[in-house]
Amino acid sequence: MKASVYIIKIGGNIIDDEARLQEFLRSFSHIQALKVLVHGGGKLATKLADTLNIPQQMVEGRRITDAETLKVVTMVYAGLINKSVVARLQAMQCNAIGFSGADGNLIKSNKRGTAQLDYGFVGDVELVNAPLLTQLLRDGYTPVIAPITHNGHGQLLNTNADTIAQEIAKALAPFFAVQLLYSFEKKGVLLDVDDDGSVIPVIDPTSYQNLKTAGKIFAGMIPKLDNAFAAIQAGVDKVIIGQAEELDMLVQGKAGTMLINGK
Amino acid sequence: MKASVYIIKIGGNIIDDEARLQEFLRSFSHIQALKVLVHGGGKLATKLADTLNIPQQMVEGRRITDAETLKVVTMVYAGLINKSVVARLQAMQCNAIGFSGADGNLIKSNKRGTAQLDYGFVGDVELVNAPLLTQLLRDGYTPVIAPITHNGHGQLLNTNADTIAQEIAKALAPFFAVQLLYSFEKKGVLLDVDDDGSVIPVIDPTSYQNLKTAGKIFAGMIPKLDNAFAAIQAGVDKVIIGQAEELDMLVQGKAGTMLINGK
Repeated sequence: MKASVYIIKIGGNIIDDEARLQEFLRSFSHIQALKVLVHGGGKLATKLADTLNIPQQMVEGRRITDAETLKVVTMVYAGLINKSVVARLQAMQCNAIGFSGADGNLIKSNKRGTAQLDYGFVGDVELVNAPLLTQLLRDGYTPVIAPITHNGHGQLLNTNADTIAQEIAKALAPFFAVQLLYSFEKKGVLLDVDDDGSVIPVIDPTSYQNLKTAGKIFAGMIPKLDNAFAAIQAGVDKVIIGQAEELDMLVQGKAGTMLINGK
Repeated sequence: MKASVYIIKIGGNIIDDEARLQEFLRSFSHIQALKVLVHGGGKLATKLADTLNIPQQMVEGRRITDAETLKVVTMVYAGLINKSVVARLQAMQCNAIGFSGADGNLIKSNKRGTAQLDYGFVGDVELVNAPLLTQLLRDGYTPVIAPITHNGHGQLLNTNADTIAQEIAKALAPFFAVQLLYSFEKKGVLLDVDDDGSVIPVIDPTSYQNLKTAGKIFAGMIPKLDNAFAAIQAGVDKVIIGQAEELDMLVQGKAGTMLINGK
């Protein structure tokens, strides 16, 4: 039987909130299984760019990353956030080790094409170094990964953290029973977007089609869920969506929405 | 026979100069032996602190590190500089992997006491994780180390890069034939501080005493050389002092000053 590994992605809403971050890291450090933490950026990068008078342009939630903005996100994501999180986890007896995608060639990406829109120094994941991650996990380390990758030719690239989590999950699927966990503002996938009590506990591909057909999935969730089912199709065991505050319960399957392969 | 490992420290004068850095990294990537790069900070951190209106106070070349300055140095040293260097080395087929002292508990330090002067969040090295470094080197990685450490209780600390290089050299001495190389503005230890042609090629403890007694060692060099001989006393094979531009020659023993144990 393959060992379980949790790939857990947290977003800016946790990073930006000191008390919630500390509480989340405590729960994270208590997970007994192997684990990887992927973190996003939060408002810190935008705030720093503002102070430095570097104009920020967002298109559909993605940051246009010019050369100066790349320096800012590298400093904030791979420097301040990554090292603060690692130091705190170390204090909680979790043997964390921080990575950008450049370190040990962990994540190689390609600069996104400019045909539709020039995102600047933004990378789409090409290859995850699964042997390195596997070795680290087997040696007892907990990788903490910042959303900065490289192209193998010396260029750092800003990369979406959700995508990194998903690509890592897929890359580890041949070696581990992978549980991919997305922390999210809502308690899970909701039947009624205004009712936190309407969490759908389990969705499989068939029920997903039915829910979509019945118009019961909030439009904004569809790309996220399509991606999640693609990961499951690619061998990931489960995708769990829920609130970081409920990490303990999410890991135990007692909260959030669990996406599974129904077969 | 123990395998050789080079611990190479570069300072701000190389980091700040794009062309010199690129040339240095190319020479560094060509070193066939095992190697570790320790980098300092340079003017970038001071520049960023200035732009952010964080007053900087230096005492005897050491930065007083308040909470805001700690954020700046963590961003610049462990983020921007460390990841840029790693990405460039990766492009040169050198399997670099970036570290702060927090990552994998690589370097644990103690916050410096405030009895004489409050340096703020500055750490003095307590322990280097030699097993982790040894494992990385044996697995073919080249660690690239930023001068940020942690105290094991969640606090990052700004730490002198010269000291980090020396402590790493001492920690690896039982396992490797360690060559500690300090890059320096001058071509080596000079008999006449104004004459680059007056490099002393080799110094052992006896000749060091004679040179000091004869007043032939520039006062500013004495603490550096005392530290170097202490490292040799602690088992380091050689300390080499010279210009980063001459790295190839320094490694071959054809330039710079080599400090050795004369016995």
